[in-house]
Amino acid sequence: MADGKPVAECLFCKIAAGQVPATVVRETESMFAFKDINPQAGVHDLVIPRAHYANAVELAANAPDLAAALLIEAGEVAKAEGLAEDGYRVVFNTGTHAGQTVFHVHAHVLGGDFLSTFGS
Amino acid sequence: MADGKPVAECLFCKIAAGQVPATVVRETESMFAFKDINPQAGVHDLVIPRAHYANAVELAANAPDLAAALLIEAGEVAKAEGLAEDGYRVVFNTGTHAGQTVFHVHAHVLGGDFLSTFGS
Repeated sequence: MADGKPVAECLFCKIAAGQVPATVVRETESMFAFKDINPQAGVHDLVIPRAHYANAVELAANAPDLAAALLIEAGEVAKAEGLAEDGYRVVFNTGTHAGQTVFHVHAHVLGGDFLSTFGS
Repeated sequence: MADGKPVAECLFCKIAAGQVPATVVRETESMFAFKDINPQAGVHDLVIPRAHYANAVELAANAPDLAAALLIEAGEVAKAEGLAEDGYRVVFNTGTHAGQTVFHVHAHVLGGDFLSTFGS
């Protein structure tokens, strides 16, 4: 059972701990949001819990309140980015085939120009 | 404060109640998963809580356990569709600009062919 403890070799654990630089968008006691270094939309941020869980299911199964908090924080990030009125997309990739490259759960928050298609 | 009660004019409330037909993928006491009628990938399902909440933030703020359950159910749907090994994408759209057309929270579960880009 995953316990959320930091993983030494995890890039996003290091970013949340300030050991690897990132462009911070928001941070709270339990969450950390920063700019994606390879943006796919006008706004493309990543929101992570500071606690380490590999993916959305592992997070939701082991820490349901934190999973809900992550969805809420994604909304706060969208507001901070001025996307509240027009809307935004929240994406979780699970597995390498879906494009997950860092195995620390992260919500992509996208918006800022017209999001025509999605997911494919 | 949203209470999750069914909304008479909501298409997805009607689908979950069996009043409008859909191709069912899985159903549980609290969740309902069905095929998107306009698929954007080899597999493209929608997963909804039976309870009515407009979007992911409203769900997470009012019913955090149900928000976590929705993420877990999205994973179960991916498994049922044979996507567990290769991976899958879970997408929440919030607002018309992001492509949300039905204001009953739904997780898109996508996979089955290579998901090259996302969200833009």
